[in-house]
Amino acid sequence: MKHLLFVILLLHINLVFGQQNLVPYVKPIIGSEKMGHTYPGATVPFGAVQLSPETDTISYELNGKYNGAVYQYCAGYKYEDKTIVGFSHTHLSGTGHSDLGDFLIMPTQGKLQLNPGTATKAKSGFRSAFSHVNEIAEAGYYKVKLDDHNIIAEMTTTTRVGMHQYSFPKSDESHIILDLMAGIYNYDEKDVWTFVRVINDTLVTGYRQTNGWARTRTVYFAMSFSKPFLNYGQKNDDDKQPYHGFWGKFDQSKNFPEIAGKKIRMYFDFKTAEAEKIKIKFALSSVSQQNALENMQSEIKDWDFEKVKSSAQKLWNTELNKIKIEASEDTKVNFYTAMYHTFINPTVYTDVNGEYKGLDQNTHVAEGFTNYSTFSLWDTYRALHPFFNIIQPSRNNDMIQSMMAHYHQSTLHMLPIWSHYSNDNWCMSGYHSVSVIADAIIKDIYKGDANEALNACIATATHRNYEGIGTYIDLGFIPAEKSGVSVSNTLEYAYDDWCIAQLAKKLNRQDVYETFMKRSQNWQNNFNPITGFMQPKLTDGTFKTNFDAMSTNGQGFIEGNSWNYSFFVPQNPSGLIDKMGGSTAFANRLDTLFSMHLPDSFFAETEDITREGIIGGYVHGNEPAHHVAYLYNWTNQPWKTQFQVRKIMAMQYKPTPDGLGGNDDCGQMSAWYIFSALGFYPVAPGSNDYAIGSPSVNNATLTLENGKTFTIDVVNQNAKNVFVQKVLLNGKPLPTLFINYNDIMAGGKLTFQMGSKPKKTIRFF
Amino acid sequence: MKHLLFVILLLHINLVFGQQNLVPYVKPIIGSEKMGHTYPGATVPFGAVQLSPETDTISYELNGKYNGAVYQYCAGYKYEDKTIVGFSHTHLSGTGHSDLGDFLIMPTQGKLQLNPGTATKAKSGFRSAFSHVNEIAEAGYYKVKLDDHNIIAEMTTTTRVGMHQYSFPKSDESHIILDLMAGIYNYDEKDVWTFVRVINDTLVTGYRQTNGWARTRTVYFAMSFSKPFLNYGQKNDDDKQPYHGFWGKFDQSKNFPEIAGKKIRMYFDFKTAEAEKIKIKFALSSVSQQNALENMQSEIKDWDFEKVKSSAQKLWNTELNKIKIEASEDTKVNFYTAMYHTFINPTVYTDVNGEYKGLDQNTHVAEGFTNYSTFSLWDTYRALHPFFNIIQPSRNNDMIQSMMAHYHQSTLHMLPIWSHYSNDNWCMSGYHSVSVIADAIIKDIYKGDANEALNACIATATHRNYEGIGTYIDLGFIPAEKSGVSVSNTLEYAYDDWCIAQLAKKLNRQDVYETFMKRSQNWQNNFNPITGFMQPKLTDGTFKTNFDAMSTNGQGFIEGNSWNYSFFVPQNPSGLIDKMGGSTAFANRLDTLFSMHLPDSFFAETEDITREGIIGGYVHGNEPAHHVAYLYNWTNQPWKTQFQVRKIMAMQYKPTPDGLGGNDDCGQMSAWYIFSALGFYPVAPGSNDYAIGSPSVNNATLTLENGKTFTIDVVNQNAKNVFVQKVLLNGKPLPTLFINYNDIMAGGKLTFQMGSKPKKTIRFF
Repeated sequence: MKHLLFVILLLHINLVFGQQNLVPYVKPIIGSEKMGHTYPGATVPFGAVQLSPETDTISYELNGKYNGAVYQYCAGYKYEDKTIVGFSHTHLSGTGHSDLGDFLIMPTQGKLQLNPGTATKAKSGFRSAFSHVNEIAEAGYYKVKLDDHNIIAEMTTTTRVGMHQYSFPKSDESHIILDLMAGIYNYDEKDVWTFVRVINDTLVTGYRQTNGWARTRTVYFAMSFSKPFLNYGQKNDDDKQPYHGFWGKFDQSKNFPEIAGKKIRMYFDFKTAEAEKIKIKFALSSVSQQNALENMQSEIKDWDFEKVKSSAQKLWNTELNKIKIEASEDTKVNFYTAMYHTFINPTVYTDVNGEYKGLDQNTHVAEGFTNYSTFSLWDTYRALHPFFNIIQPSRNNDMIQSMMAHYHQSTLHMLPIWSHYSNDNWCMSGYHSVSVIADAIIKDIYKGDANEALNACIATATHRNYEGIGTYIDLGFIPAEKSGVSVSNTLEYAYDDWCIAQLAKKLNRQDVYETFMKRSQNWQNNFNPITGFMQPKLTDGTFKTNFDAMSTNGQGFIEGNSWNYSFFVPQNPSGLIDKMGGSTAFANRLDTLFSMHLPDSFFAETEDITREGIIGGYVHGNEPAHHVAYLYNWTNQPWKTQFQVRKIMAMQYKPTPDGLGGNDDCGQMSAWYIFSALGFYPVAPGSNDYAIGSPSVNNATLTLENGKTFTIDVVNQNAKNVFVQKVLLNGKPLPTLFINYNDIMAGGKLTFQMGSKPKKTIRFF
Repeated sequence: MKHLLFVILLLHINLVFGQQNLVPYVKPIIGSEKMGHTYPGATVPFGAVQLSPETDTISYELNGKYNGAVYQYCAGYKYEDKTIVGFSHTHLSGTGHSDLGDFLIMPTQGKLQLNPGTATKAKSGFRSAFSHVNEIAEAGYYKVKLDDHNIIAEMTTTTRVGMHQYSFPKSDESHIILDLMAGIYNYDEKDVWTFVRVINDTLVTGYRQTNGWARTRTVYFAMSFSKPFLNYGQKNDDDKQPYHGFWGKFDQSKNFPEIAGKKIRMYFDFKTAEAEKIKIKFALSSVSQQNALENMQSEIKDWDFEKVKSSAQKLWNTELNKIKIEASEDTKVNFYTAMYHTFINPTVYTDVNGEYKGLDQNTHVAEGFTNYSTFSLWDTYRALHPFFNIIQPSRNNDMIQSMMAHYHQSTLHMLPIWSHYSNDNWCMSGYHSVSVIADAIIKDIYKGDANEALNACIATATHRNYEGIGTYIDLGFIPAEKSGVSVSNTLEYAYDDWCIAQLAKKLNRQDVYETFMKRSQNWQNNFNPITGFMQPKLTDGTFKTNFDAMSTNGQGFIEGNSWNYSFFVPQNPSGLIDKMGGSTAFANRLDTLFSMHLPDSFFAETEDITREGIIGGYVHGNEPAHHVAYLYNWTNQPWKTQFQVRKIMAMQYKPTPDGLGGNDDCGQMSAWYIFSALGFYPVAPGSNDYAIGSPSVNNATLTLENGKTFTIDVVNQNAKNVFVQKVLLNGKPLPTLFINYNDIMAGGKLTFQMGSKPKKTIRFF
């Protein structure tokens, strides 16, 4: 009766809010081929567990040598591969560096094999061939047939618990393997320590410590089986074990419940009837085995796989329904898959009891917020967090609380650069936490102490020992002798400093405002008026010779060449345009960027890029130029923004496994798409203005947390009618090429009228 | 004023209880030469910190190869050595296997050297020459001059915090080294992980994980300096580090506060004036950095080294005063040093807030007891815990609570064999927890649930997969084909089973009593009536051929030969005497043991023994024969017990660095001495009877926890008058050769009258 009432209530809620089933538009497989680095497995919005198949476990060479596998297998799965090694519980989505892949589980039957085997040798280990024909990847659900074992694998998750369901054939030799030495970014010394307790014939707990991209990382687990195993055992491949004296009293290989060491693989034996389902709940925690168990008991109370799957997909529908669009089927797939990809990171990093492991490796309690990890800030400050400020403001507040907690735990007294499971992996340049924080406080999203947050921004931006900040403060730029990425750092610092200034202005901290506004002009110091490019400068103030604007190698930039990075003054496009010779010259220069031909050498020396990720010399596959197509708005040729963003959307986002033109980068690529598809983009987070582009949807309704609704209506839109003829806000023409954050959050309607020819007036409304 | 009142109060207490200053009689240096394996450094009674010098850091070979260094450096210090490498915070006392040596600190001056150097090359590293002339080792205090650095090092401790005081010369290059890769039992892979945070210029916290004798072990620390350091840095000797991408932004070698990895040595730089003292507080915890810091803040509030030292020595005086003796100066030194050695293990393993890490690697709270670790039970069940039942009953109750907590945390559902820092190292045979538990419950010491404790004993004793228990249950002995130590195991199990039976009897569990009384007779199954020796038996019930009663190699015994082990039926000496041909034959056989000549091969093949540890064929340096000298009491020649125990005391216990004839074994050798010096010994813990020996003190006053006093008065005692003429309890002749526990605990007076000639009647009173 109660249950029925609940169903009726849900139906009622769905009717009131008009919730649609948008899950079918989400194709997690998009981006899993070539460069997208997404994973196809199951997760819930911002879930701590990402339960997904690994198609290879290629090892990584020792001694700091970087090899291709580190890059290729960032998400553990490559669509091109023919075998699955198993299903692990943690995955990064779209990153350009790899880690995680914890607790690989593989069901097998027949003779027990405890080595994974190799992709090229069929049946050489426990891995199995599979076919995409027998594979289903949905939001919150993944299914595949493991051909070599004749086993159907299904998985779903809650926030902190993965649920597996394996349908076995009839067999007296069915096994479930728990590979505790498998991992992504797996080199010989990644396994720091493993500890396992087999508590009874259905419950196992333990932890695993790794030294990967995250240097000091421990993940605790609790694993529960729906059916008691008959036997279990382990194989320890560590050939450097000490003399453990009296441990020899035990045969530790079989049915021995106290396991510890490195390089351990376990197995659990079953007899199965035809089509018998064995289910596993697998819970994670950063704090303790007890917390993992508590997470499990709290989130999945019984063994109803379908119920867990249905709950997961309900969660997805709730999130996806925050934007309802009318558009072509392909656009809907691209759009909702992009929403899916934006809502899987950052990831929840708090146990159900509120505890989490901090950067200081101490256990903390998140008081009044949910703690998050997986902050790929160099990417996500650009569009992902700005997107959250519209559509996930509460979560973005929690994320900033998490960043502030990180700051308080930092012995360096720095905000996160790349917050990664109680570690900072320090990846990429700038200190873009300050952009995310400033943007949120300026938009009144942040509920914490704003002045304390500003102080944290200042502390981070004045950390003289960090990546040239000292010389940057002293000289206004970073000398090329001191850094191989001196120019990109200076440019990014200057933008971040502008964010700090905007925040200081909001908080009436005039001295801070002035200091950082001054610093925000430092981009000028690397601009060479003679060449018109951003160039590395020596300590003596002269530009470094042998400059090549096309090259990404040794020119002072990271993930971009000077052609792209010279446009990186998002805080002051007008100032840049002045330096570059005015509106027409600047627009011409953008034209050249989008149409130029890149030499082969460019691809050889540039990371994270395929030819598909490039339009002319514009590199959408890397982030530094993400705002560039919108810069035409500051020139006398804004229709070229409209043309180019539609071209980028069409070329870089396709509803196919290889549909993403570059790493999704924890949702940044997808957030770019969502903004652009809706018709506007945050060129400079920290500002309330969005530059108008060219919407690719016909209609969109944004349901905001404040209860308001913002509708975007796009009249006469199609693949040819990419040019904006008129934009009306609540029926009145927009006075500028920009729409303001407050206008969106107030609710209302934005109407675009589209046409096939550019409206060649600057103020065309 | 308050302070003065406090002092007056203390003086008052001292007067009332008549406390003597007994610290001068404690010579921690005793046993530090040759085989004693004691450490000379500072600790408080049952302290969690043992702050003591290391004289070498010889490494251990890989791949399970056991080498001499593992054995020689059990305590980190060998009196024979000429150099000190540093001072570390954890040490085992008297063990025959090594571990610990955490957080080695060394003060140096002059050019910074971050390698320890070698003992044979002067000034090859940070180690320093030292001389025993400049060394003071007291209970709770250690001092030494480091000749190469011209630094005076002093140390003292509280329970959980070590305090260092280094007096430097004038130098602009003074350093304090924190070696995080040093350790005892240090082989290449012992360092599992190290994590350090330099919080400010006086505070450092972190942890260190090792895989040593304890397999999964983490020690957290907090370290505070009395003076800010000017600079600090680290060297990481791990050549197998992964590519850590963006960590390269930092120069991690100098003034970088977030340190992690393996094989790390740190340094802290100072400028010092002549004779300037730099002090360090160094706190430990098994749970967290925060707990270590809390332990520090709770136990040492200021920087008064003398106050901490004085408190430590007060604690020692309180413990030592529990037995006040009159005796020769040498005997007083031996006796109080023995008391010192009995009171430094087991060690407190609870933080001040009650938390500790359990065997399951979860954090637990010790509710209503102090949790202890370092249970060398194969040794200490014999006399140490029985001694505690008289003089430390509250602590022994806590120790049993700790053993029960270990049991509850054990996935194997077993009581500890050798409880070692949240691990069991499984060292040695038997399941002697049950002896300690039974003895304490029979003596009404244990405050917990006695039936639950009995159930834990039964579960342990019926764990069929553990060291032959299954076949032992089925056959009544362990077949020689299945175990190299089949006979010693059977003998020890049989004794332990008798303990379980006694406990069951006390708790009216008749069925358990009968089962285990039956098992307790299993010693008979290895007794060969033809040879008169305990011998290994094959599954078919026949004795194994090629038996050699002298050899310790491959004869079915551990740390003993059949000559010694054949006497191991402490639960039933009369039964053994019957089997061995009656009283006279048995006494003759004991005579032979104490007078026989051992071949050289014996010493080559036997562990833990020097020629000094042997009297005839009696091996006092190992434990299995510790009760043997008292077995004459069951024959018609009890005066030979008196003669032999005095001989053992005289030969095996001397007030010199090489004064201990064998490993002190966590206090067991010392507890044997204390009992023997007082004139009685617990031949079979689990019984309330002690066998009368020959006291070597003139008088002893035992102050019991129950408020009673038990006095032992020895009339006419000297080195020649070793034979007991008469024994009176409260003025009445003792009716047997035994004194009962309850008679001691009731308070009263035991009077011995001694003479130079044996009183050759069995019932001589």
